[in-house]
Amino acid sequence: MKTIAPAIPDISRRARLQPASPIRKLVPLADAAKKRGITVYHLNIGQPDIETPPEFVKVIKNWNKPVLEYGNSKGDFNLINKVTRYYKRELGVDLTEENVQVTTGGSEALIFAIMAVTSPGDEIVVFEPFYTNYNGFAVMAGVTLNPVLTYGENGYHLPSSDEIERHINSRTRAILICTPNNPTGTVYSRKEMEMIAELCRKYSLFLLCDEPYREFIYEGESFSALYLKDMEQQVVVLDSASKRFSACGARVGFLISRNTEVVDAALRMGQARLSSPTIEQEAVAAAFDLTTDFFQQVAKEYKKRRDLLFRRLCEMPGVSCEKPEGAFYLMARLPVRDSEDFCRWLLSDFNVKGETVMMAPGAGFYASPDKGMDEVRIAYVLGVEKLDRAMDILARGLNEFSGK
Amino acid sequence: MKTIAPAIPDISRRARLQPASPIRKLVPLADAAKKRGITVYHLNIGQPDIETPPEFVKVIKNWNKPVLEYGNSKGDFNLINKVTRYYKRELGVDLTEENVQVTTGGSEALIFAIMAVTSPGDEIVVFEPFYTNYNGFAVMAGVTLNPVLTYGENGYHLPSSDEIERHINSRTRAILICTPNNPTGTVYSRKEMEMIAELCRKYSLFLLCDEPYREFIYEGESFSALYLKDMEQQVVVLDSASKRFSACGARVGFLISRNTEVVDAALRMGQARLSSPTIEQEAVAAAFDLTTDFFQQVAKEYKKRRDLLFRRLCEMPGVSCEKPEGAFYLMARLPVRDSEDFCRWLLSDFNVKGETVMMAPGAGFYASPDKGMDEVRIAYVLGVEKLDRAMDILARGLNEFSGK
Repeated sequence: MKTIAPAIPDISRRARLQPASPIRKLVPLADAAKKRGITVYHLNIGQPDIETPPEFVKVIKNWNKPVLEYGNSKGDFNLINKVTRYYKRELGVDLTEENVQVTTGGSEALIFAIMAVTSPGDEIVVFEPFYTNYNGFAVMAGVTLNPVLTYGENGYHLPSSDEIERHINSRTRAILICTPNNPTGTVYSRKEMEMIAELCRKYSLFLLCDEPYREFIYEGESFSALYLKDMEQQVVVLDSASKRFSACGARVGFLISRNTEVVDAALRMGQARLSSPTIEQEAVAAAFDLTTDFFQQVAKEYKKRRDLLFRRLCEMPGVSCEKPEGAFYLMARLPVRDSEDFCRWLLSDFNVKGETVMMAPGAGFYASPDKGMDEVRIAYVLGVEKLDRAMDILARGLNEFSGK
Repeated sequence: MKTIAPAIPDISRRARLQPASPIRKLVPLADAAKKRGITVYHLNIGQPDIETPPEFVKVIKNWNKPVLEYGNSKGDFNLINKVTRYYKRELGVDLTEENVQVTTGGSEALIFAIMAVTSPGDEIVVFEPFYTNYNGFAVMAGVTLNPVLTYGENGYHLPSSDEIERHINSRTRAILICTPNNPTGTVYSRKEMEMIAELCRKYSLFLLCDEPYREFIYEGESFSALYLKDMEQQVVVLDSASKRFSACGARVGFLISRNTEVVDAALRMGQARLSSPTIEQEAVAAAFDLTTDFFQQVAKEYKKRRDLLFRRLCEMPGVSCEKPEGAFYLMARLPVRDSEDFCRWLLSDFNVKGETVMMAPGAGFYASPDKGMDEVRIAYVLGVEKLDRAMDILARGLNEFSGK
């Protein structure tokens, strides 16, 4: 055997481009703070503290089969049936099982949708700030996000049709939006949705609409992309059980489309990965029996938090933000040069009586360089009392940091 | 608003290329047969009938937290700890938590590994017949599989180094192998593994080694890619809890590598999809306390099945196959022109006293056209009694079909 000098191959360009999540990248600093005995208020991640409903938990605890088998690649048929009934009951939308693919979380619904409508080298129009993980999914799929900037001063609502049109080119295959929006809390109006639809029709684009926060609305009305006329074959809705049922760790989501070619492509991708978690699909199916009452009660709780958070932030010198209309996130502009520095400092060098706050730096929610540098995303996933305390700490932190 | 003729966009080229799983594509025919009251013996899918161990089930049933939260993107730390201890205890391999990324099934470990070492347009060398879903993952990643043919007559063992070398070109980034092999049951020898390693070193390639069937060995010895010398930075092992603990529906797998850049890239992909199922990770962690005894007992059961299956197939006129050395699959050559036609016919037009057999047509396990047309993959995932009965039915079916 000849001797060969070992040459270690590099990881791929794709792997190098894969971004670290700005929501999670400061986790090591938070872990270190906790090891020092510091209590950390987690406002960085959309992990609600709302109790997972007993309807869901009961199924888990009563699970009683000899073998934990793969599920069907398309998803559990009872669950799919519950999903179509939910869409009829809550949205008045008629769907059949042909329109639904169960996914491993809303994350997989996004990946499948992106892959179903793009090939490597294609582009997707997004509105920044946007849900940061769109960046990661785009890198995996080998596609480029073409970001259209929206502004806090305008409540992060959409710019004019002309402005959006400038970002559409021959490689554009889809427009990807999220409503109610993560990270801004903006709920797009019917008029905005129709403007987007018009562009999709004009340029023959798919509209990928990420709607996991549909039930969390405090101002205005949720307008699902499924309501759009003459868009049946172009709309793909991404949905999730995570927030609706406070079951983020279940990893159950949904891809919904009347374009059965898209759903069929998602099914074939689903066959490659075999199935979504079996037990949780049964549990989510049971949770879908929860009615409007449950959703309204949860939304009421989030509205209280939003009101408190918005009021407290408005009182802080140099802080500005818009009142979120839905979801449970808010983008705030802080009187700091680099919000990531500030977030790191909060975890590493600051505490008030052994407590501090963790937020997600804003830049990671933009694709354009140098945007969002003074912004943070705050997830109001803690009860009003804790949230109030977290705001005390943030106010003190801003005061102290500005003197540095 | 101007009137625009609606132009429906096409799904992507990638989506059109995405293959339907040959393991699952005949499911509608099986469902139809069941609706007609026919019992179907499922030999098409690697879904074991072995009971999920009580250690695992107990955790599920005792799950008792107020909120089902996201897990850590890297994976539950207790689970990772159990994984490194398992590798030390069962394989004698030293790993740290830096070497492990928990994935949503072995499927996601494969996707992450492929994406970590390739960009769109790159190539991966595989040995056909291969686990069919490699095709689907390659399409998603935008990479091309370059298949090296292996032969039943040779027990599907590897061809010469020269033959493999002919499939390596400037776009090749990795060699992907599976041992013990799905679909052939072949266990690659130390010598074969070292030959592959030599090629990886020579051409600076990653070696992706899919080892979910490590414990199911009936002849020879399992040689993990982690044993290879001077390959620490090039080996990525894909592993799964599915078969080891008969918990396929848990969706918990592992990407293992001493190349921390690869593991870190996988973590960043993991951050994009947030987390693997929370409850099942806890349950798998508990299952890892099972010792060698458990694995040996399960392997003994599979060996009984393998022996029966092999004997029965050898007795059938015109059928040929090799004795599998591991895993729980066997590729059999049948005296039919098109095994997919035969498999369809078994489900649609044939039964013996209300019972029939489902197998996976062989062609889907090849990338080369026209290969595997007379082959089927049989998963011996039923007890000996049922397996014996299924072989009665197959023998009758072959006899009747040949007269057609």
